[in-house]
Amino acid sequence: LGEPTLPWYVVGSQVLGVACIVMTGVWMGHYGGGYAWDGSRLQFNVHPLCMVMGLVFLYGDGVLVYRVFRNESKRSVKILHALIHMMALVISIVGLVAVFDYHNKNNFSNMQSLHSWCGMLTFVLFFLQWLLGLSFFLFPWASATMRTWYLPLHAFFGLVLLATSVATSLMGITEVIFILVYFNIMATGALANILGLLLVCFVVLVGYLATKEEFRRPPNPEEEALSVHFNTLNEGSDPSSP
Amino acid sequence: LGEPTLPWYVVGSQVLGVACIVMTGVWMGHYGGGYAWDGSRLQFNVHPLCMVMGLVFLYGDGVLVYRVFRNESKRSVKILHALIHMMALVISIVGLVAVFDYHNKNNFSNMQSLHSWCGMLTFVLFFLQWLLGLSFFLFPWASATMRTWYLPLHAFFGLVLLATSVATSLMGITEVIFILVYFNIMATGALANILGLLLVCFVVLVGYLATKEEFRRPPNPEEEALSVHFNTLNEGSDPSSP
Repeated sequence: LGEPTLPWYVVGSQVLGVACIVMTGVWMGHYGGGYAWDGSRLQFNVHPLCMVMGLVFLYGDGVLVYRVFRNESKRSVKILHALIHMMALVISIVGLVAVFDYHNKNNFSNMQSLHSWCGMLTFVLFFLQWLLGLSFFLFPWASATMRTWYLPLHAFFGLVLLATSVATSLMGITEVIFILVYFNIMATGALANILGLLLVCFVVLVGYLATKEEFRRPPNPEEEALSVHFNTLNEGSDPSSP
Repeated sequence: LGEPTLPWYVVGSQVLGVACIVMTGVWMGHYGGGYAWDGSRLQFNVHPLCMVMGLVFLYGDGVLVYRVFRNESKRSVKILHALIHMMALVISIVGLVAVFDYHNKNNFSNMQSLHSWCGMLTFVLFFLQWLLGLSFFLFPWASATMRTWYLPLHAFFGLVLLATSVATSLMGITEVIFILVYFNIMATGALANILGLLLVCFVVLVGYLATKEEFRRPPNPEEEALSVHFNTLNEGSDPSSP
């Protein structure tokens, strides 16, 4: 019963994810006046777009590769997982540089708001998690025991950081709306609120796909026996395996 | 290895949860001028305190009863789970009435912000989830098949709503800080930001306790055979069982 629904959930997640990017792009590009890299408010506009593309959409899709390509070789999927998250990291860095540089050029203070604290914490932990994932699962350094120990933590904190990333986006939307309301800069109506709800729907759907038992990778004893890249002991029974 | 750590995680979650309530109470009670029910800003102060007590702390503790009392009879724990969530609902309703009444008495518009949209959605879905849980698991109406179908959804959306509840709190903190900053009403320093981080830590710890395989209720075939309140078929193997 669960099996044939997986593709539809995946399509749904992609529609939601693309809708989030388009709405952020339209909000900042049309209502917000467009994009630039000149220290003006148009440079700030780069920040939300990059963060939604990197730390929400690409991050979520990086999680989903284990469900979308659940019948491909585990090593290929692991490399794809690492690559998509690397792209997510790079685009997030562009988005962070955009806003720090905008603040600095205008003598605004950095790292004052709860948004900035949560966002920086999410970014730093994401980067750390990416490095740990690389060391434990792609390089041959970690023993099978260490991999078995770290895997459920990696999967749990992966979803936690996606959730804090979206929570940080919601605070960002709230900040932008408050600034716009008080200074009457632009009327965005319900657009920003709907964007917020779509971001929540995206992360909930990715979380559902990532944790639902029936959508997990089926155990493949032949591949496991050949592979040194993964602990095989409780592969079939351990629900924290990706 | 995982077993003896459970009590420490539970103690940690309670310390974090109480710290969140105390900090909200101090923020609103001391820096925010105190509490009242007279339509003044002091009535607004009731709102954050009630929401953190109800939709964050009590809600989280309602989730945790399945871990804290994992060796008690399942029926008793189910009733406790329903009762704690009912208390969470009642306190949340007081918090919601406080802010709507404050808005109405001051002719402020309701349901404009993303905070209010996410918060109302969380509250309504929480109420719905509570009613569904009661009908499926406490009353004898639902068949074993229906219970097996609904249980993982109930557990998943239970954690989702706790997360959206905390995300809504973070937006609320952001709104209050922005209003205070622009109108120079009060200096709260880093207190509100630290409260935000503590709320995130609380929900992450509750989520960890609720999803970690080793912390689940051990299957109890004797109890299951006697009980008509729960499907027994894949009790031991289904990790979505509470």
